[in-house]
Amino acid sequence: MTTRPLHLHPDRLLPANATVRTIARGLYDSVRDLPIVSPHGHTDPRWWARNDCFANATDLLLVPDHYLFRMLYSQGVRLEELGVPDATGRSSADPRTAWRTFAENYHLFRGTPSRIWLDWVFAETFGIDVRLDGETADFYFETITAKLATDAFRPRALFDRFGIEVIATTEGPLDTLEHHAAIRDSEWTGRVITAYRPDAVVDPEFEGFADNLGALSDLTGEDCGTWRGYLDAHRQRRAFFKKMGATSSDHGHPTPRTADLPDTDAAALFDRVKGGDASSADAELFRAQMLTEMAGMSRDDGLVMQIHPGSFRNHNRQLFDRFGRDKGADIPVQTEYVDALRPLLSRHGNARDLSIILFTLDETAYSRELAPLAGHYPCLKLGPAWWFHDSPEGMRRFRRRTTETAGFYNTVGFNDDTRAFLSIPARHDLARRIDCGFLAELVVEHRLEEWEAAELARGLAYDFAKTAYRL
Amino acid sequence: MTTRPLHLHPDRLLPANATVRTIARGLYDSVRDLPIVSPHGHTDPRWWARNDCFANATDLLLVPDHYLFRMLYSQGVRLEELGVPDATGRSSADPRTAWRTFAENYHLFRGTPSRIWLDWVFAETFGIDVRLDGETADFYFETITAKLATDAFRPRALFDRFGIEVIATTEGPLDTLEHHAAIRDSEWTGRVITAYRPDAVVDPEFEGFADNLGALSDLTGEDCGTWRGYLDAHRQRRAFFKKMGATSSDHGHPTPRTADLPDTDAAALFDRVKGGDASSADAELFRAQMLTEMAGMSRDDGLVMQIHPGSFRNHNRQLFDRFGRDKGADIPVQTEYVDALRPLLSRHGNARDLSIILFTLDETAYSRELAPLAGHYPCLKLGPAWWFHDSPEGMRRFRRRTTETAGFYNTVGFNDDTRAFLSIPARHDLARRIDCGFLAELVVEHRLEEWEAAELARGLAYDFAKTAYRL
Amino acid sequence: MTTRPLHLHPDRLLPANATVRTIARGLYDSVRDLPIVSPHGHTDPRWWARNDCFANATDLLLVPDHYLFRMLYSQGVRLEELGVPDATGRSSADPRTAWRTFAENYHLFRGTPSRIWLDWVFAETFGIDVRLDGETADFYFETITAKLATDAFRPRALFDRFGIEVIATTEGPLDTLEHHAAIRDSEWTGRVITAYRPDAVVDPEFEGFADNLGALSDLTGEDCGTWRGYLDAHRQRRAFFKKMGATSSDHGHPTPRTADLPDTDAAALFDRVKGGDASSADAELFRAQMLTEMAGMSRDDGLVMQIHPGSFRNHNRQLFDRFGRDKGADIPVQTEYVDALRPLLSRHGNARDLSIILFTLDETAYSRELAPLAGHYPCLKLGPAWWFHDSPEGMRRFRRRTTETAGFYNTVGFNDDTRAFLSIPARHDLARRIDCGFLAELVVEHRLEEWEAAELARGLAYDFAKTAYRL
Repeated sequence: MTTRPLHLHPDRLLPANATVRTIARGLYDSVRDLPIVSPHGHTDPRWWARNDCFANATDLLLVPDHYLFRMLYSQGVRLEELGVPDATGRSSADPRTAWRTFAENYHLFRGTPSRIWLDWVFAETFGIDVRLDGETADFYFETITAKLATDAFRPRALFDRFGIEVIATTEGPLDTLEHHAAIRDSEWTGRVITAYRPDAVVDPEFEGFADNLGALSDLTGEDCGTWRGYLDAHRQRRAFFKKMGATSSDHGHPTPRTADLPDTDAAALFDRVKGGDASSADAELFRAQMLTEMAGMSRDDGLVMQIHPGSFRNHNRQLFDRFGRDKGADIPVQTEYVDALRPLLSRHGNARDLSIILFTLDETAYSRELAPLAGHYPCLKLGPAWWFHDSPEGMRRFRRRTTETAGFYNTVGFNDDTRAFLSIPARHDLARRIDCGFLAELVVEHRLEEWEAAELARGLAYDFAKTAYRL
Repeated sequence: MTTRPLHLHPDRLLPANATVRTIARGLYDSVRDLPIVSPHGHTDPRWWARNDCFANATDLLLVPDHYLFRMLYSQGVRLEELGVPDATGRSSADPRTAWRTFAENYHLFRGTPSRIWLDWVFAETFGIDVRLDGETADFYFETITAKLATDAFRPRALFDRFGIEVIATTEGPLDTLEHHAAIRDSEWTGRVITAYRPDAVVDPEFEGFADNLGALSDLTGEDCGTWRGYLDAHRQRRAFFKKMGATSSDHGHPTPRTADLPDTDAAALFDRVKGGDASSADAELFRAQMLTEMAGMSRDDGLVMQIHPGSFRNHNRQLFDRFGRDKGADIPVQTEYVDALRPLLSRHGNARDLSIILFTLDETAYSRELAPLAGHYPCLKLGPAWWFHDSPEGMRRFRRRTTETAGFYNTVGFNDDTRAFLSIPARHDLARRIDCGFLAELVVEHRLEEWEAAELARGLAYDFAKTAYRL
Repeated sequence: MTTRPLHLHPDRLLPANATVRTIARGLYDSVRDLPIVSPHGHTDPRWWARNDCFANATDLLLVPDHYLFRMLYSQGVRLEELGVPDATGRSSADPRTAWRTFAENYHLFRGTPSRIWLDWVFAETFGIDVRLDGETADFYFETITAKLATDAFRPRALFDRFGIEVIATTEGPLDTLEHHAAIRDSEWTGRVITAYRPDAVVDPEFEGFADNLGALSDLTGEDCGTWRGYLDAHRQRRAFFKKMGATSSDHGHPTPRTADLPDTDAAALFDRVKGGDASSADAELFRAQMLTEMAGMSRDDGLVMQIHPGSFRNHNRQLFDRFGRDKGADIPVQTEYVDALRPLLSRHGNARDLSIILFTLDETAYSRELAPLAGHYPCLKLGPAWWFHDSPEGMRRFRRRTTETAGFYNTVGFNDDTRAFLSIPARHDLARRIDCGFLAELVVEHRLEEWEAAELARGLAYDFAKTAYRL
């Protein structure tokens, strides 16, 4: 086997039609170098607080990326072979061997966005010019690992090199935000902000919910054994998060169900769930009520509210028992928005000071429910194609199915939503190319003028995210 | 800011690929000038009965068009600013100021069909050659308003100029059809017909249902306090509507649920709902039973039956309280057809004298349920892409997802379904372009011969509507 | 009316874009002549056992093909006119007259895959060079019928001429497989295998279920009045089917619901349903339990398990009463997989020795549920676009919606799934063209290298089916 060249074609991901491609290329060239605004993601603030070198190719690129090991697992590779730590955090795999296994199976990613992102990382970030496969596995491992040991590949240097204007991480209310504090206290000027993700103290079915409420009491001095104190604790933590840069909250619920109970009913519900042994109906109702409560707090403190529903978490019970959460076994389910959001919207839907960004893993909701809702309610906007749909075809479906009803201006630009730091510029690059391709198609069909497409290209790549997330 | 030229490109909305476009252009040229058949819509028959001039740009183009003000509302514009009357019918907005607000926000419609339709109206109907924006707002308002005051822009003149062969409006059983009578009694030869839309006396949850039954008794002399009398009243009104030109009935139900109760059960159900305080289960069951009853009447009187299900009406409660119905807050919901239609189909589905046209706002039903149903049952045909899907992408999805299973011949051509009179030729033009583009793609992929595509282009633009609606 | 030429364009079904088409054509040329692997279908093994001549055009091409008569029926043609036998097996139609009716209505199939398949059969298999219509109906009938009387058109000759490497039929546990035995005992070397389809003895709602259990007892010597004996009877028949070449089982359930009951509960459930008068809830639970049982047996005997859910069978009650099953009135319904499959997956999902192939008629599940499941669980793979979706647009949707999440390697190549023997090469040809077109698009967008696309083209056309079905 001979090594194959790795070369990123300048026209990659642009539509095949030559006329469309020429226009798309022009649009893309005008936005390619705009700074990266990353308003929603899961990078580790410790990286920029400590600025330590990353350890090696496997630990940085393979082990934390559930997009990768889920596919390998689906084809019979054991997670142990890949260095994925078990539920106790232990892994006995040799990083180089794990990398080799990955490399030998890299063909599995043909046609997936992971392949596109990784090839970008290999070529652009590490300057590698041969393709990853079994033959080149060791070369890759050594090249990447060696570069990671240099100052140019420390987290802050990469942040600057990637042109990141601002990045948001996600933390829970119990987090002390010490890393964010350290970043702000450092001489480094990179803007790393947090986002308020309260699932651990909002979802009665979250592991350790009752203990989490106790910890929230300790942290805030509020009595989280009472409904009133619990809500005040949220207000206090939201204020603290806001002080540490947060402009948004994030809510990862199984469904977008909302409720608007009378206050005494809500308090009684809280009493039923606070012990951590809620019925599943009460748990769902409590999460539903809390979305409406959070919307009310957002009206007070101005945090933009993100709702990320519709994932059946940890579907593979055996794997969860052995390896814990986030192991590629979260599976989307059908998601209903029209009835579900009505209680919240009846209470807050016409407020001009409220901004709610809706996401979905159920693409059937794009044209049927989400675009019509966002094309009417002042408080609603649509988050970009999410997770499994953060991909060329996924993004195209998103635009084709939402634009005609919601327009472009009820969307919020791109989220990379990743913990794979090095893939961030690759993901934004992909999104910019796909959006410019879509706009170019509209131009060629005379549905947009070219100057309008240029305005929109910039909006989708940069302006909309800043505005929608109040950055 | 300089004004931008407004120019309708002759190849607009045709596919980007040059080979496909050339064929599409040829097909389109062959159907472009065919008369407009508009078998389903919501124009006001009073226009053609009285033939009064339209008042001004805002009152004609903006205020009645919920596609427009919903989008503006979603971006923070208050309905009051746009001249939308409140629930008492009052509006204090200055039409010119409202138009300016609209013009300044016209960019919101980029990528939407409203933009395409309006640009057509501006360019083709009013001869305007600059784009609408804040700079040109006053020019637009004055130009349009001035032209509307001329005889050439009276309703009958526009009807003739647009090449409308026949247009159907929609009226309820309580309507006297006086405007239709006036049109028929006039010297004008334009064909304006009605359609029988009985929701107000079929849906127990309709505002004023019990009173409506009383009015129906008064109008018909039948005792609508009894099941028998109520059905006879329908028969009588259907006959009257048919005499006034109707060839179809139209049923706007929340769901396509049907029922086929024994007659005594149906009568007992009617007794439970007739007072207007039905349980929601009884209301749904009654609507379900009435679809089957209406299908039976259609077999007797030959009216084509249209079923328009799946919209959650007046989702925004605050807005409904202040402004009433049809304010852009109707949101589609998931819609199930296979179980829902079975009672009706078990009774009437194999009848060759019955024609039912099914619509959906839930595109997931196209390939899964509707095309298989229409590709089997002799009585079923598929209505075109409806409402939010009356758009380039929406129509393409409709054709791509229904044709392979239902064929072209189980579809019924285009419906403009609008109360925006001036947009009617724009909408038919858009539909013809998109259908010709789709046919041309099939030709280039050698899935159709070009002469077959030409036959189908004419069918989709003209023949199918006439046949399906018995016009 | 003049006759129109019938000519299969060499570039048919390849994408319109010239650059894409050139690459697609190259890929297609590399796989066009690969042998046909047909791992799932419904041809009649008697054909190859007896090798009798087929009777005439109508009996071979029209009468058994519910794709054809459903469409004709939907447009008012009576099944009696087409020679479709009634529930007692009787038909009084003259084959030539039936063929004429079909020919006169052949335009109804424009835009459908039936038209593509049939034109292939007419041109390639029968060498006809004019299009089918009313004028050419008799010529077609005579030409085809005459050729069918020749040795070159006997079943074995056609099998060899079509380049079929292996074909699977489908039989129930009560089948003696006498035709398969006859084929194996003959001098002919064609590979015709069976597949184990136990619906008649697994579904308590199947016609004659209780009698079927009795017959299963008689056939196996096991006591199918007991849960233990019933399961052993399955094991015995599976072993027999395997001996007769089967490499897979096939399960045509209304839903993909699975269950994993404790053995005593399962035995009690069996006792409740075995009499054939199960409640519908028990029937569903029993089918659910049996999927998990079958998965366990598959782990023991290595048969690949296929699950084909989501069809509402015999929706048209009147037609069913008069004509019986499989008359084009099977309608897909919404299908949920994530909850439904969890019991089975919790028990067997991480087994590397198990292979389950999932199908759907509900395309909404492709990106939302099926690709994420197959992209994680080692035992799961995705069957190709099925039934109504076995078509150019259907296959493209399948690839566009599954590839980015499940990759290509969690799919299994093509199934023709047909009882229309002559259409088999046409169907494989269509699938190869569409897949090559899809791959070529990825190449032109630089999402794949051309050499990768070539590997995948071969995989999708040939290798994947052999591997996935263990052929």
